[in-house]
Amino acid sequence: MDHTILPQTRRELLSMIGKAGGGVAMYQAMTALGHAAETQFSGPPALAGARKGASVLVLGAGLAGMLAAHELTKAGYKVQVLEFQDRPGGRNYSIRGGDKVVETDGTVQDCNFAPGNYLNPGPWRIPHHHRTLLHYCKALGVELEPFIQLNHNAFVHRTKAFGGKPQRYREVATDFKGHVSELMGKALNAGSLDDKLTKEDKDKLLVAMREWGALDKNMAYTGDLKVASQRGYDRAPGGGVGGAPTPSAVNSLSDTLSSNVWTQMGFFFNYVMQTTMFQPKGGMDMIGKAFFKQVGKLVRLNTRVTAIAQNDQGVSVSWEDTKTGQKGVAAADYCVCTIPATILNQIDIQVGPAMKAALKALPYSNSVKIGLEMKRRFWEEDYSIYGGHSFTDQAISLISYPNNNFFKDGSAVLLGAFAGGAGGYQLAGMTPAQRIEAALVQGSVFHPAEYRKEFASGVAFAWSRAPWIMGCCATWTEESRAAHYQNLCALDGRIVLAGEHASYYGCWMEGALLSSLDAITRLHQRAQAA
Amino acid sequence: MDHTILPQTRRELLSMIGKAGGGVAMYQAMTALGHAAETQFSGPPALAGARKGASVLVLGAGLAGMLAAHELTKAGYKVQVLEFQDRPGGRNYSIRGGDKVVETDGTVQDCNFAPGNYLNPGPWRIPHHHRTLLHYCKALGVELEPFIQLNHNAFVHRTKAFGGKPQRYREVATDFKGHVSELMGKALNAGSLDDKLTKEDKDKLLVAMREWGALDKNMAYTGDLKVASQRGYDRAPGGGVGGAPTPSAVNSLSDTLSSNVWTQMGFFFNYVMQTTMFQPKGGMDMIGKAFFKQVGKLVRLNTRVTAIAQNDQGVSVSWEDTKTGQKGVAAADYCVCTIPATILNQIDIQVGPAMKAALKALPYSNSVKIGLEMKRRFWEEDYSIYGGHSFTDQAISLISYPNNNFFKDGSAVLLGAFAGGAGGYQLAGMTPAQRIEAALVQGSVFHPAEYRKEFASGVAFAWSRAPWIMGCCATWTEESRAAHYQNLCALDGRIVLAGEHASYYGCWMEGALLSSLDAITRLHQRAQAA
Repeated sequence: MDHTILPQTRRELLSMIGKAGGGVAMYQAMTALGHAAETQFSGPPALAGARKGASVLVLGAGLAGMLAAHELTKAGYKVQVLEFQDRPGGRNYSIRGGDKVVETDGTVQDCNFAPGNYLNPGPWRIPHHHRTLLHYCKALGVELEPFIQLNHNAFVHRTKAFGGKPQRYREVATDFKGHVSELMGKALNAGSLDDKLTKEDKDKLLVAMREWGALDKNMAYTGDLKVASQRGYDRAPGGGVGGAPTPSAVNSLSDTLSSNVWTQMGFFFNYVMQTTMFQPKGGMDMIGKAFFKQVGKLVRLNTRVTAIAQNDQGVSVSWEDTKTGQKGVAAADYCVCTIPATILNQIDIQVGPAMKAALKALPYSNSVKIGLEMKRRFWEEDYSIYGGHSFTDQAISLISYPNNNFFKDGSAVLLGAFAGGAGGYQLAGMTPAQRIEAALVQGSVFHPAEYRKEFASGVAFAWSRAPWIMGCCATWTEESRAAHYQNLCALDGRIVLAGEHASYYGCWMEGALLSSLDAITRLHQRAQAA
Repeated sequence: MDHTILPQTRRELLSMIGKAGGGVAMYQAMTALGHAAETQFSGPPALAGARKGASVLVLGAGLAGMLAAHELTKAGYKVQVLEFQDRPGGRNYSIRGGDKVVETDGTVQDCNFAPGNYLNPGPWRIPHHHRTLLHYCKALGVELEPFIQLNHNAFVHRTKAFGGKPQRYREVATDFKGHVSELMGKALNAGSLDDKLTKEDKDKLLVAMREWGALDKNMAYTGDLKVASQRGYDRAPGGGVGGAPTPSAVNSLSDTLSSNVWTQMGFFFNYVMQTTMFQPKGGMDMIGKAFFKQVGKLVRLNTRVTAIAQNDQGVSVSWEDTKTGQKGVAAADYCVCTIPATILNQIDIQVGPAMKAALKALPYSNSVKIGLEMKRRFWEEDYSIYGGHSFTDQAISLISYPNNNFFKDGSAVLLGAFAGGAGGYQLAGMTPAQRIEAALVQGSVFHPAEYRKEFASGVAFAWSRAPWIMGCCATWTEESRAAHYQNLCALDGRIVLAGEHASYYGCWMEGALLSSLDAITRLHQRAQAA
C-alpha cells in the first residue's frame, strides 16, 4: 500500500474529502468515455417490426447463426436455420466422455473422459470486456467462473535456456524486471538519459526502478530477502523457533534473457488476455446449448448446404440430409450465412465477384488442442499450480491447468497442447495417438515424475482436420483486410455473411456475435427499405 | 505464443522429444528442491503417544489455538480451550447481517447486510503456497474459490496525478513499461551500457524491450494499434462494416510517473500476493467454523483469562465468565497460549523476563476495513470490473470488489477501505458512521455516479478498537526480531506461545498455523522427555 500522500490530521482529511468530491464531475465525463471505448456492443438490437411474413434463412447454428435466429425471431421474422453437424454450437464446443471425433480422413477418436470432464477444443476463455458475449451469457442463464490466466507459480520453459529446465514464472519475471531496473538505474545515474527526461522525472524513475525492480539501496539486483519476497525463498518463512527464511539466488542477466520470459510478460498484457477472464461452468458449449434452448425448434441439424442461390424475389438454398440422404430446397426472403470461408469456398454460392474474392483471400489459422485426463491433480497437490499456463517453445506451445473444481479429488483434464503455426501442423500431421504421445513427452518436461504415471486418456483435436471447418479461424492480414474486408461484410443482394471472420475480433466468440448483430441490423434496414 | 525454436520436420520433432525426455532426470532433482522451498509445512505433525493423562490448556480459540487443540487431542492429550469471545475463530472472522460489533469505548454497530453478504474484517485472501492452511481447509472440508488479486481493468488513483482522475491499471501499467522500454532502448542504442552487458545480451535486451514494451519499429512508444492491443482502444474492435478499431492515446512519461503505478506493479509481484489466491466460499470464518466442528466440545467461550501461573507440577489459569461473572481456575500439565501480545501484556503471566520483554517489544499494526453493501454490482455492470482492487492514496487506501457471485443480481458487499498506518488511525478515530461516510466520499472518486446512489448499509471495523485484541497483527522490525523473537517462541517452563506473532509470516493465518505446529511439536518433545 502506498500511504505517501496521506493527510496527517482530521482537517486535512476532510479537506481531501472535499477535493475528491470536487473531482467527481470531471471524472464522470471520463468514465462515460471509458465505457464507450470498451466495446461496440450497446445492448441487444432493437429490430422490431419486421414486415408481415418476411423470412430469413440462417446457415450455420454456431453462435453467430443462433444469435441471428434469436434476434430476428424476436423482430418478427420467420427464421429457419440449417446446420451441417449433429449438434449446435459450431466452434463453441466441448468434447466429453462418449463423444466421437471424426477427422477429414475418416479417423475416429472415442473420448473416454470420466463424467464431468471435458476439453474445450475451440474457445476456452472470455475476456471481461467482451460485453456482447457476457450479456447473452447472463440473459440466457449461462453460469461463469473465473479463468485463471496469469499464474506466477506456473512454468516457463525454453529448450535452450537453463539446460532445458523449466523455471517458475515468478522467478524469471522478477529477475527480468530486476535486471532491467538495475541497468536503467546505471544509465540514469551515469547521466546517459539526461537529455531525454527532466530532473524531476529522472528522480521519480530512479525511485520507481528501485522499488519496482526490488533493488537494494545501492540500486543493485541481489538475492536478498526483499527480492525473495517476490521470487520466492530457498527456505520459506515459517513459524516458531526455526521460522527464519533464507532467500533464493537470482539468475544472471544472461540466463534471464535466455528464458525469453518477456514473451509471457507481454502476453499477459494483451487486452484480450488480461484479468479478469471467465469460462462457463461445465464446459464452453454451455453457451451454444443455451442459445439452442432459444432457437432449437428452428434448427435443422445434419443438413449440408450444397448451393446458395438468390434472385430479386428471394434466396433459395439447396441442402442434403447427411443421415438420410434426403434432399431439399429451403427458401426465404433473405439469408444470413455464417458458414466459414473454408467451407463456403467449396459451395456454389450466387454472390458477386467482390465477395467471392474476399472469401478466397481469407486463410484460416490452424490449431491443435489436446486434452489429457490425469488421474489426480498433481499440478495442484505437488506443485501448487491452480489454473494458468506453463509455456514452452516445443510444438505443444503450452500446457494449461483446469480452472474448475480446484482442490477436488479424482481425475481432471489438463490442456496438454495449444499448438498453432508450425507446431500445430506437425501435430495435425500425426495420428491422434501420436499427437497424444508427443504431448505426453513434451509436457513431461514440466511434471516429469507425474505426467505419464497419472495419465488416463486423451483426445487430440486438430482444427485443420475437422471436416466441418478444415481450419480454426480467419487470419486477416493488414493487406487482405484493406483489400477485401468490406466486400466480405457488405450485403450482396439478399445475402449477408456473419461470423468471427466478418469482424475485427477474429478467432473470438465476441467477434462472431458482434458481426452477427451488425449483419442482421443491416439486413433488417434493407428489408424495411425494400 | 513463442514458436521461435519449433522444429521444422517430423524428424526434428522426434529428436526434440528425445532431448526433452533426457532433460527429465535433471529437472526432477530441481523440482524436488522447489517443493522444499515453497513451505516449511510437511504435513500434519506426527505427535502420537502422549503420556497417559497428560493435559494441555490452550488459551484462545483462534486458528492457532484450535489447530493446537485438534492435533494435541489426536496425539492423546487431554485438552481444554478457553476463549474470551462468544465465537471461535479470533481474527478469522466474517461479519454478517444481524451481527453486533462492539468497540473498546462501548460503541456498538449493528450489521444490516442482506443474507449471504459479509465482510471479512481480518484475513481475506489465501496465497497458493500457504500449504498448511490449504491442507487443513481440504482436510476439514472448507470449500475455496478464486480470489482475484490483479485486475488490469481496475483503477489507480493518485490525488495529485491526472487531475485526480483515476486511470485504468492496464493503461498506466502499459504506459510505464512502454516508456521504460523506450528509454532503455535509447540508452542501449547510445552505447551507454556497453560495458555492463555482452553484445549478445544487448541484442536480446533490445528485442525484449521492443516486444515487452510494445514499441514500434523505431523503438518508440506510440499510440498505435499494437499499443492499443494492450492498453485498450478509443473505439474497440467490432464486427461487420464498422468494425475497425481506433487506438487510444498514450500518457506522457511525466504523467505516467506521477501515477506511481509501479507501486501496484510491484505489489502484484509480492510472493504472498501472487496468483492464484483463494477465499473460502461463504466467508473467511468458514475456516474457524470448520476447526470448531473438530474441537468445539473442548472450548469454553466467553471466558476471560485473568492470570496464568506455573510451577514444577503444571500450569493453572484463572478465568472469569464474561456473561455470568463466574470465576474459576483451569489446570493442566502444559499451556499453549495464543492470546495476542496486546492482551497478554495486560495479564498477570508467570513467565521469565525474556519472554515478558519480547511481549512488550512487539507493537501491533492497526487496520480499518469497511464493508459497503451496494444495491447492485455496478462495478461489474457499468465498469466491467470483476474482483481485484482499485488503489488510491487517500486514507481508505483501496476499494476491493467482491469475488463471490460474479454476474449475480441483487446486493453485494464492496470492501470500501483497507486502511493501515496513518490512514487507519484517522479512520479509527472517527465514529463508525463517520468512517462509512469518509469511505463513501473517498471511494466515490472511482464510481462517482453510483457510489452513493447504490449504497445500502455499511460496517466499519477498526482493529485498534476491538476490545479482544486492540490491534491488528504483530509488526516485528529487523531489530526487535533479532533481540526478542527467539525469546518469544522459546518454551518458558510449561508455557509456549503460538500465533502469527510467533512466526515469520506475521499477519497471515499461515503464520499462526505454522507457529502452532512448531509450538506443539516442541511441547510434545518436552512432555515426552519429562
